[in-house]
Amino acid sequence: MRRICVVVTARPTYSRIRTALLAVQAHPALELELVVAGSALLERYGRAVDVIEADGLQVTSRVSMVLEGEDPTAMAKTTGLGILELATVFENLRPDAVVTVADRYETMATAVAASYQNIPLVHVQGGEVSGSIDEKVRHAVTKLADLHLVATEGSAERVRRMGEDPAAVLVTGCPSIDLAAEVRDRSALDFDPQERYGGVGTDLRLDDGYVVVLQHPVTTEHGEARQQITEALEAVAACGLPALWFWPNVDAGSDGTSNGIRSFREQHEHLPIRFFKNMAPTDFLRLLVNSRALLGNSSVGIRECSFLGVPTVNVGGRQRDRERGPNVLDVGYGRDEVAAGLTRQVEHGPYPGTDLYGDGKAGERIADALAVAPLGIDKRITY
Amino acid sequence: MRRICVVVTARPTYSRIRTALLAVQAHPALELELVVAGSALLERYGRAVDVIEADGLQVTSRVSMVLEGEDPTAMAKTTGLGILELATVFENLRPDAVVTVADRYETMATAVAASYQNIPLVHVQGGEVSGSIDEKVRHAVTKLADLHLVATEGSAERVRRMGEDPAAVLVTGCPSIDLAAEVRDRSALDFDPQERYGGVGTDLRLDDGYVVVLQHPVTTEHGEARQQITEALEAVAACGLPALWFWPNVDAGSDGTSNGIRSFREQHEHLPIRFFKNMAPTDFLRLLVNSRALLGNSSVGIRECSFLGVPTVNVGGRQRDRERGPNVLDVGYGRDEVAAGLTRQVEHGPYPGTDLYGDGKAGERIADALAVAPLGIDKRITY
Amino acid sequence: MRRICVVVTARPTYSRIRTALLAVQAHPALELELVVAGSALLERYGRAVDVIEADGLQVTSRVSMVLEGEDPTAMAKTTGLGILELATVFENLRPDAVVTVADRYETMATAVAASYQNIPLVHVQGGEVSGSIDEKVRHAVTKLADLHLVATEGSAERVRRMGEDPAAVLVTGCPSIDLAAEVRDRSALDFDPQERYGGVGTDLRLDDGYVVVLQHPVTTEHGEARQQITEALEAVAACGLPALWFWPNVDAGSDGTSNGIRSFREQHEHLPIRFFKNMAPTDFLRLLVNSRALLGNSSVGIRECSFLGVPTVNVGGRQRDRERGPNVLDVGYGRDEVAAGLTRQVEHGPYPGTDLYGDGKAGERIADALAVAPLGIDKRITY
Amino acid sequence: MRRICVVVTARPTYSRIRTALLAVQAHPALELELVVAGSALLERYGRAVDVIEADGLQVTSRVSMVLEGEDPTAMAKTTGLGILELATVFENLRPDAVVTVADRYETMATAVAASYQNIPLVHVQGGEVSGSIDEKVRHAVTKLADLHLVATEGSAERVRRMGEDPAAVLVTGCPSIDLAAEVRDRSALDFDPQERYGGVGTDLRLDDGYVVVLQHPVTTEHGEARQQITEALEAVAACGLPALWFWPNVDAGSDGTSNGIRSFREQHEHLPIRFFKNMAPTDFLRLLVNSRALLGNSSVGIRECSFLGVPTVNVGGRQRDRERGPNVLDVGYGRDEVAAGLTRQVEHGPYPGTDLYGDGKAGERIADALAVAPLGIDKRITY
Repeated sequence: MRRICVVVTARPTYSRIRTALLAVQAHPALELELVVAGSALLERYGRAVDVIEADGLQVTSRVSMVLEGEDPTAMAKTTGLGILELATVFENLRPDAVVTVADRYETMATAVAASYQNIPLVHVQGGEVSGSIDEKVRHAVTKLADLHLVATEGSAERVRRMGEDPAAVLVTGCPSIDLAAEVRDRSALDFDPQERYGGVGTDLRLDDGYVVVLQHPVTTEHGEARQQITEALEAVAACGLPALWFWPNVDAGSDGTSNGIRSFREQHEHLPIRFFKNMAPTDFLRLLVNSRALLGNSSVGIRECSFLGVPTVNVGGRQRDRERGPNVLDVGYGRDEVAAGLTRQVEHGPYPGTDLYGDGKAGERIADALAVAPLGIDKRITY
Repeated sequence: MRRICVVVTARPTYSRIRTALLAVQAHPALELELVVAGSALLERYGRAVDVIEADGLQVTSRVSMVLEGEDPTAMAKTTGLGILELATVFENLRPDAVVTVADRYETMATAVAASYQNIPLVHVQGGEVSGSIDEKVRHAVTKLADLHLVATEGSAERVRRMGEDPAAVLVTGCPSIDLAAEVRDRSALDFDPQERYGGVGTDLRLDDGYVVVLQHPVTTEHGEARQQITEALEAVAACGLPALWFWPNVDAGSDGTSNGIRSFREQHEHLPIRFFKNMAPTDFLRLLVNSRALLGNSSVGIRECSFLGVPTVNVGGRQRDRERGPNVLDVGYGRDEVAAGLTRQVEHGPYPGTDLYGDGKAGERIADALAVAPLGIDKRITY
Repeated sequence: MRRICVVVTARPTYSRIRTALLAVQAHPALELELVVAGSALLERYGRAVDVIEADGLQVTSRVSMVLEGEDPTAMAKTTGLGILELATVFENLRPDAVVTVADRYETMATAVAASYQNIPLVHVQGGEVSGSIDEKVRHAVTKLADLHLVATEGSAERVRRMGEDPAAVLVTGCPSIDLAAEVRDRSALDFDPQERYGGVGTDLRLDDGYVVVLQHPVTTEHGEARQQITEALEAVAACGLPALWFWPNVDAGSDGTSNGIRSFREQHEHLPIRFFKNMAPTDFLRLLVNSRALLGNSSVGIRECSFLGVPTVNVGGRQRDRERGPNVLDVGYGRDEVAAGLTRQVEHGPYPGTDLYGDGKAGERIADALAVAPLGIDKRITY
Repeated sequence: MRRICVVVTARPTYSRIRTALLAVQAHPALELELVVAGSALLERYGRAVDVIEADGLQVTSRVSMVLEGEDPTAMAKTTGLGILELATVFENLRPDAVVTVADRYETMATAVAASYQNIPLVHVQGGEVSGSIDEKVRHAVTKLADLHLVATEGSAERVRRMGEDPAAVLVTGCPSIDLAAEVRDRSALDFDPQERYGGVGTDLRLDDGYVVVLQHPVTTEHGEARQQITEALEAVAACGLPALWFWPNVDAGSDGTSNGIRSFREQHEHLPIRFFKNMAPTDFLRLLVNSRALLGNSSVGIRECSFLGVPTVNVGGRQRDRERGPNVLDVGYGRDEVAAGLTRQVEHGPYPGTDLYGDGKAGERIADALAVAPLGIDKRITY
């Protein structure tokens, strides 16, 4: 019986690991120790912890660790505080392995704390390419990790080329696709997101189609966040379709985003845009699969939407170099460019789906790998 | 005028960066901001900060951050605390670049704090191979760093293969060799280390030859530290030559080492061994170049001694896979094996020196690189 | 020449110490080391640091330390982080004394860090009574402090009764009154706050009178914050006068406050209320002295307004047991009670001012005391 | 069923709370959540956690938090780190009350973390007088605490005079006396401490009498620690009786103490002194009650020894103003003065015991108080 400690620190992290958590909890040879930390505990970011518990997952430990400010200093200090706190959690739990997900600063905190405590570290979703601090962190975590459960063949290849033992690199697909697979199978929009989640802004009629927007601030271009969001808002206004707009996650620059949204709303009260903070992942995917297009710079457009065939307008460089399906159209930040892209994708309609990021069974594969893969801490570079 | 912030956290780190610090301080296009942190401030580890100031370097900021315990939890928490503290230091200094050295946990703390604060990160001595947590950390820091100033061609090659931009990888040699070059040029032993530094243990006569011992605990083999040190002590006792034994640096397991040394001393009071805690780097190198052999697992045996041609008995796996000159003889931990190796090396006598780790001008090269190399923060993997 | 380190952590703290800072900076026998920390660095709380620099004060060091969440855990962790950070600041500055102000969690952090570092601790504004965690912290800081510079005779008496040496307790008055004294001397409202500071909400006409609202969440009644703010909003709406409403400072519960304000605004768009985040202290006092009344639970109503004679409606228990002038009318949280109080105070008009909290020269007195009072660290209880 | 969280951070703290912990664990209306933290986890300070578990107490959570250095900065940072860590522990446990003991920096950390989290705080052993930073901290904790369980009537009176509600101040006696009462009842020395605990130094014959030494460094006289310990060593050497010397606990200055002891040992190898690091509390008390005298500045001489009637030579100001029985003789730091005091007390022989610090039932009284006393968090000063 292996005890597997997974640290979940944010709403998007949870979406990307959810089916793996459920599979670990259900696996006869595994025991799940779930640590919920960081913005997943915060009201301002939608308290993912409530969704987690509603999904039937038991939380072992909660760790508050996010510094105010959403600036570079806050990100650095959140990482440091996370290491301090998680070191205590790991020392008390003494799990057989620690799982860290993707590329956030809390991912790094988890990785450093586990590594120095000589606990085998499993990295989910390494090897991807994105640019910015996220990429540095993702590859640094790869160099700390002992087992790599990656989403795609391209990622596996990069992890191996960085000098990791090929035997420790397994392609499992991305658990976010598992959710998408469930939704694809029973996909009609059977609820009104406005009734279920409220949101703020205009009351929308969704029957004749709508678009979904999910745009994160780009950390290393901190001061420009507000301008970028304004361009996106203007483009959405120009397209004419009602828009369901999701609030960005905690990150340096998101204050800029929030301010941009807030002041736009004050000046454009009657535009058909409604803003949401958070949503159960399956509801969100149901919305997506029924939408005319996704706009923004979220990896959802690259991953889930490639599987679901949802037309995606990908803004700016945040997803640059990520492997992508035919559903993705890349545009710059300018409002005209964004609006033109949006029109083109809405007119195109749904694309055929691909298995690029998984076939819907990643959660099970991850649990199985955690149950049987050799777990050690002594690795060295292969060249 | 670029302001360069260098973080020095331990005695051995200082030895490895000293001539670069002096060259940066003297460079007309550079301003040095020197942060002294961690065990470099602690009495128990010889307060390297005093040596630093005696060398004419000005300290901008001091940061206490070492957790007691010398166990995995302490190492993790020291890293976390270091990030918290260094984030504040960097936020207040706002340097043009931060330099981090080698592979300790404070190296990681420096790297994470600088990376999240969008300050270009320069890594000195990346790309080497050693196994254990140090290697994981060293390569993780490589993935966070924007400019790589490495000691050897082999290291440069590994850094490039990890996906770093070849234009950002410069071979400068290791500054520790600069000191060795000074010492080689005027090498007679013109002082008695017992008079100058005291130490504890037997009074030794050094005229007829002596050996130097420097053996660190091996972190991932924590519990075995005491046994390993006992084997080394027995081997030195068997060889018959007087020994100058240097106290290990802070690290998980060093309590085991200290206890091993202490209880051995109580049982073998009259053996010709004397224990030292710390020494000015040049005095230490003078001792080395005049010794019959170095015994232990320190990188000094691989680096400085290969340049100086000092016969080295390298114990155990700590330096495994490091590039090495002909002066190094590898042995296991058993007392017989160590003793045999020591005898063989003493009988062999001095080796010809090599330029493997540098030619004595690394400090200047590092300063020049810091003055002219492009400093950015936006990189991505090359494949 | 004594070096005096003052730690300022929030907008209201700055208002309460500003003239003392200017007097210390100008004093021939004193050197000011000003540390700006906590919410004073945060956009969300109006970046008091910008005001501080605009006032001609030089900042020695900035320390980010506020945890997100505004809940009890965040307050505790902010205190802990503050101690860690300030210990480093004090170790590097080595001032002759550290000054801590009032009763916030950062006040406690400053006090603990200075005490354990054997630096004489000066507490400004001890001895007051307020209930809640603030009171516990204020008196705990008194027991850590070596010199007490208090605002009123009543406070001095309480500090002495707690066992402090009477020779170490000086009544200086409160520096916040110094600002009020300047404003009282040239008091006409010569600017439009909406032009100068923007704010959000309705455009107001202020010529026929207005009220000012400043209501903080009450920490130990965390969940009720939203309800309380709604009651206050309804009462202001009922009174009919335009209202300038100031956004609450960071503290557990203020998210509740913010949400209450936001949802009220969405439902009552045309009410004559305008919301501000921050304001230069003198502008704020100019607004106050020209207002019909102050409503809320801020100490401004008790201190500055008693000096200025501004009618004050003091809501709930936050200022309970604070010494107060005749200008203060206490009411409960219910909307009817608040509205009745507001009407009564508006009808009453200005009160005569009192010197209860100072005569306008507290800043100078504090600087003089810091220049000449004995500064030691060895005290013991007097009974 | 109340859940009571007790934080134990050091060997002496454990001795002072042990019987209360056992009584809480056994109490039908209480559930014990025991957090072991700080130096109680460290090898260098004798790992009190092992003793705790051997006593049958279950540890809920372990928290490493001691900074290296044993200097003022380390003490401050340990406090800050403790608050960060304990805030997480309390947030996860949500106990009905937190108990903090005496006056160490971890006591303060516990108090601050619990206070800001709105958990009722119980302080054991407040109200005592000692001078130095310990006294400041002890009284500061009193001002944070909601319930005071004190050892003596004199302490109760001081706590009340500081403005605490008399109904929240209960005299329970000190649990350390409970152990002493057990030992007094069956007091012959039935073991050889050298066999059971080893220790280092000379092999002693204890049959003809011995003295016990326990001398802590005095924090605010940091640099003098080494000199003081040397004086004590010379005095013990002069008295002629064998001495069992206990290693000082972690605190600023103890490095000075350790160094003093170490260098003395090297120069006086054959003196009849043996050094111990740690001992089960009952064994230690058995040693005490059979000794000719206790020498040092530990509170054991004031508390347990007054109950047991053991002649005590109390050195220096550390216990100044503590209530004391007739068994205590106060002396200064000079070797002659110490030696004369030691001779006088050895010649005097045992004193009659007193109930000043308790009658042997403090543990039960504390558990009963925790089960029935009102537990609130809203207090204010009584004057």
